[in-house]
Amino acid sequence: MLNFACDYLDAAHPKVLEALVRENFVKTGCYGEDDVFSDAARAKIREAAAAPEAEVWFLAGGTQTNMVVISTMLENWQGVFAAKTGHVAVHEAGAIEASGHKVLELPSVNGKIVPADLEAAFRSWEGDGNRWHMVQPGLVYVTQSTECGTLYSLAELEAISEITHRHGARLFLDGARLFYGLAAAGNDVSLADIARLTDAFYIGGTKCGLLFGEAVVFPKAGTVPHFFTQMKQKGALLAKGKVLGIQFDTLMADGLGLTIAAHADREADRIRAALRGKGYTTLYDNPTNQIFVQFTNEEAERLGREVVMSFWERTDADHVVLRIATSWATDPKDTDELIALL
Amino acid sequence: MLNFACDYLDAAHPKVLEALVRENFVKTGCYGEDDVFSDAARAKIREAAAAPEAEVWFLAGGTQTNMVVISTMLENWQGVFAAKTGHVAVHEAGAIEASGHKVLELPSVNGKIVPADLEAAFRSWEGDGNRWHMVQPGLVYVTQSTECGTLYSLAELEAISEITHRHGARLFLDGARLFYGLAAAGNDVSLADIARLTDAFYIGGTKCGLLFGEAVVFPKAGTVPHFFTQMKQKGALLAKGKVLGIQFDTLMADGLGLTIAAHADREADRIRAALRGKGYTTLYDNPTNQIFVQFTNEEAERLGREVVMSFWERTDADHVVLRIATSWATDPKDTDELIALL
Amino acid sequence: MLNFACDYLDAAHPKVLEALVRENFVKTGCYGEDDVFSDAARAKIREAAAAPEAEVWFLAGGTQTNMVVISTMLENWQGVFAAKTGHVAVHEAGAIEASGHKVLELPSVNGKIVPADLEAAFRSWEGDGNRWHMVQPGLVYVTQSTECGTLYSLAELEAISEITHRHGARLFLDGARLFYGLAAAGNDVSLADIARLTDAFYIGGTKCGLLFGEAVVFPKAGTVPHFFTQMKQKGALLAKGKVLGIQFDTLMADGLGLTIAAHADREADRIRAALRGKGYTTLYDNPTNQIFVQFTNEEAERLGREVVMSFWERTDADHVVLRIATSWATDPKDTDELIALL
Amino acid sequence: MLNFACDYLDAAHPKVLEALVRENFVKTGCYGEDDVFSDAARAKIREAAAAPEAEVWFLAGGTQTNMVVISTMLENWQGVFAAKTGHVAVHEAGAIEASGHKVLELPSVNGKIVPADLEAAFRSWEGDGNRWHMVQPGLVYVTQSTECGTLYSLAELEAISEITHRHGARLFLDGARLFYGLAAAGNDVSLADIARLTDAFYIGGTKCGLLFGEAVVFPKAGTVPHFFTQMKQKGALLAKGKVLGIQFDTLMADGLGLTIAAHADREADRIRAALRGKGYTTLYDNPTNQIFVQFTNEEAERLGREVVMSFWERTDADHVVLRIATSWATDPKDTDELIALL
Repeated sequence: MLNFACDYLDAAHPKVLEALVRENFVKTGCYGEDDVFSDAARAKIREAAAAPEAEVWFLAGGTQTNMVVISTMLENWQGVFAAKTGHVAVHEAGAIEASGHKVLELPSVNGKIVPADLEAAFRSWEGDGNRWHMVQPGLVYVTQSTECGTLYSLAELEAISEITHRHGARLFLDGARLFYGLAAAGNDVSLADIARLTDAFYIGGTKCGLLFGEAVVFPKAGTVPHFFTQMKQKGALLAKGKVLGIQFDTLMADGLGLTIAAHADREADRIRAALRGKGYTTLYDNPTNQIFVQFTNEEAERLGREVVMSFWERTDADHVVLRIATSWATDPKDTDELIALL
Repeated sequence: MLNFACDYLDAAHPKVLEALVRENFVKTGCYGEDDVFSDAARAKIREAAAAPEAEVWFLAGGTQTNMVVISTMLENWQGVFAAKTGHVAVHEAGAIEASGHKVLELPSVNGKIVPADLEAAFRSWEGDGNRWHMVQPGLVYVTQSTECGTLYSLAELEAISEITHRHGARLFLDGARLFYGLAAAGNDVSLADIARLTDAFYIGGTKCGLLFGEAVVFPKAGTVPHFFTQMKQKGALLAKGKVLGIQFDTLMADGLGLTIAAHADREADRIRAALRGKGYTTLYDNPTNQIFVQFTNEEAERLGREVVMSFWERTDADHVVLRIATSWATDPKDTDELIALL
Repeated sequence: MLNFACDYLDAAHPKVLEALVRENFVKTGCYGEDDVFSDAARAKIREAAAAPEAEVWFLAGGTQTNMVVISTMLENWQGVFAAKTGHVAVHEAGAIEASGHKVLELPSVNGKIVPADLEAAFRSWEGDGNRWHMVQPGLVYVTQSTECGTLYSLAELEAISEITHRHGARLFLDGARLFYGLAAAGNDVSLADIARLTDAFYIGGTKCGLLFGEAVVFPKAGTVPHFFTQMKQKGALLAKGKVLGIQFDTLMADGLGLTIAAHADREADRIRAALRGKGYTTLYDNPTNQIFVQFTNEEAERLGREVVMSFWERTDADHVVLRIATSWATDPKDTDELIALL
Repeated sequence: MLNFACDYLDAAHPKVLEALVRENFVKTGCYGEDDVFSDAARAKIREAAAAPEAEVWFLAGGTQTNMVVISTMLENWQGVFAAKTGHVAVHEAGAIEASGHKVLELPSVNGKIVPADLEAAFRSWEGDGNRWHMVQPGLVYVTQSTECGTLYSLAELEAISEITHRHGARLFLDGARLFYGLAAAGNDVSLADIARLTDAFYIGGTKCGLLFGEAVVFPKAGTVPHFFTQMKQKGALLAKGKVLGIQFDTLMADGLGLTIAAHADREADRIRAALRGKGYTTLYDNPTNQIFVQFTNEEAERLGREVVMSFWERTDADHVVLRIATSWATDPKDTDELIALL
């Protein structure tokens, strides 16, 4: 059975496992106070992001990271703007609200916030005579690549950054699939751009080569006071900091993350080309490792006998949209087989 | 200067103040354990609502009541459906989210949830393969009369109640302006209907004759366990229970609430007729004590020199919508003057 | 039946009710934006506290006030020191924890924090190698008069203030019974001292002459950002701000609060003298309006047939401690009757 | 440099890493819906605990596990009893309070709750006339082995379980170091006893052989409704469920956990004997892998040049208590060297 259900099917890139085995008995400080591997990983991230002053923290997963970063960046009376398709708005079981903050939903166009909508939303709040009876927008949340597999262009991200900061708010970029975005055909946004334009972002490891792990980057140190204690309080401080340090040190070495993400994107490109050739309808014209295809019920059933894909949404009684995801671990032979089945 | 800014300008109906003065030194139990006035008020509410088993609690204000009721009716993993114009969605500074729960916004048509939208929203959640990564809708919030001054018809409320319960959720009605709805021309929803169709509702006193106070009614006793302690924890338990008991006992006696609300609605009807006669545009075709009128900037400025109204929204660069509210305390002579100014 | 159960049995001082009646139809801004009565009350409080820059807010009750002030003064990673008998530690149903913060309990000696214990507690945290895995003490909570009816001396309060600030924390004084403390025999702490030594305090109206209401004072304006919106979010913003403004304006005029509290304290002094004369054991040697007396079960039963007192604690199988409370409203004839019964 | 600072210095037992490498590309369901490895691990846990109906979940770390389990087992108005030395009371940065619940501290005798103190605490709450203004004790938290390295005897645990349930509360056992307790000399509490006596417990992997991971066991399925969604909401649901499944499947196979914990306990026994022989003072007479030794400042400084130990507490100006911890990974040669240095 082929499996293209998601990009977190496989445990970890072999080099990551090798490093864990190799460094297994090297004793370092605990609770993130690992000044060997974690500090080495931090140095590589700062360099890759051209952000020498950046503060870097390692957490276990995406929802945890979003919740910890957003709830510690917001004041009590503030909320966060997000596209209504944003992960924090839909698929985190209300984690942001459980931490006390409102997700202020904006329209989603191909999974993205449109700068003009953001500008209008800030102005609406600012111009409302009752605004201090309302939640103040204190943060803007964007995803790169988005939940729809699309990408913000550099121009879009610059516009969003400018708008956000002009209105006194801050910008947070969810990079659960950041490497797949960086490696995509046509992408014009670099890690250094992201570090320059945002107040916080994270580099996703879980979906790109690690057993688990996300690296939070605050380009400007001190953005969130006592982040260490706040991580601890949210249950997000791993006892064995080196387990995350070793993994990220490996992922950031010699461009490993980019290389393996590029592989996934290229495999996805092949599938997209095949789908196009055979006349299938795909949602969003996107260049990353996720593909959203509309099938008739019959097609979905037939393919479902040989390929695991994941449910995205039902179009109507006769059609359904399924997601095909490639990953760093996708075997090109599996891709060939999938294409043959289409 | 005339003042039609809101329906909570004046302190309390004279009969309420008289009762407070009269019963000032009658000593009763504290912290809501007032078995004299509060129990008398409870009995009157049960009778008016034809709900002999109902549990009744008295709280201080609307946002507090919404927050306490919603957060104690929801399980950790649940959220509440509300029209996107609903008070809890917009004007409570994120109180529901601060209590840990998501407000799941539905389209608002004239301030109301449309039954078909509610049905679709429940089905969307139920049919989503990722629904247990999402917030479960556990409660539906409606307002009567709504933030736009409109009313649910009995048929609409019955449909919403049926849909809500069929999908395993519960229904809560915010009655901050309930009396103004009950007394409105054309209203076909009685207090007994509300008690029959909802799992919780409240009768607003703050906006209709009391110094402050809202009476929460759970038609079925035991709906929320340990509501007393939960009120205390949220800071919503008044030390002098009798202060609320005396006020509600007065408001529920001899139909006082209905009578004074009817006065407000009639004054609003006069203003509406005058506006219509003079060709003004009003938003929503509503029969209660709030009127939303679109003015040109010039009109707004001219009137604003003699009448206090409140900002609702800006239509465009040249037009603004202002709210005119009557109340139980509106002096007919003030209404006459206002009409003359239009 | 005599009733000495608590100091919130009666509704409000007649002058307060008279003012409410008199100003009933004066229209002012809403939601605390009442620039007539509230501003007048604020001015009187600033003058009485010799704190011309102070920011003053009016809330409904004590638990609400403690919860709103403490949770808005603390950062996410901080908690509050309190005597283990403190109201916030025991009798608020976990309101502080429900707002996300730990109450760090200190020993209670006669209801008070001992400065040396506070110093030691700060040093213990500062000297702990694991302190950033722990809750940081960010605030110190004291009560005047305390839950045991005792008073901090000026020297004690100065010591606590000095220790608190030297360790980088802030001081909050719960003044639910502040007037009873200010008026007590032997008290050497003035309102101006409190304003000088604390970062926040409140003047309790509920227990001293008002229908309800507490006045929060931040001697230094801006201590808590966006307190208005945070009050709203916690359900603590009363729609009719003038209802609180009128009451406090009356209570602060011509020393009314102090005068009526002095009456209560004098009545309590008479009861204390009688108890002493008859050989009863009282807990705490305190000078305010609460008296804690140990009775044999037989005595408690006998008196309980004619006087309502409140349960404090059980000493052993044969003895119980009950509380006798006088108030601004205590009728001297009731005191006489009580003394005759002892 | 020798390192006996803690029991989470080394990454993972080689068999665990081997399994991760071996199963790296086996594709299973995501988000804990891994029916291969996780289900196999669950089966082994149920068998080891003689709890065939038990519900088992895998989380990432100890503080996270305590916070998720406690906050989902408690009702809004409830708190949790814990020894004042308990991890949740001291070293979790207020995670329980941040989730809204009070930790009700009990005296700690050698790191343990004394059954008589627990009985008294329940009775105190039940007998308090103001108990519904207070936090209800809904859960009892114990640790095995405790933060002081001590063990509850079976008789003690049975007493605590009986008291807890008789008073209508539930019992949760934190097993971060459970294997070290199970393997200790003189231990008479089995995994099956724990499953029989508690309502929830967890088996700690982080401190005993895994990269990270704790297995929560609810002996009675359905104890916490929608635990899956609640984990997600708290950021505790790992995307790659199999990473935890593989690890626990390995740890539970062929008694691996017990075997490696026994090694640690034996090494600690050797150190304890040596300390005793040389006249050092140890705190707590305990049989597990943690040893708390009082040193003079000079001794601490001398040893500190060659051995990393961790700070526990300062006894006085001249003495300090340090912790020596062995683990599954302690090299006997390191133990020999340490003993030689003493």
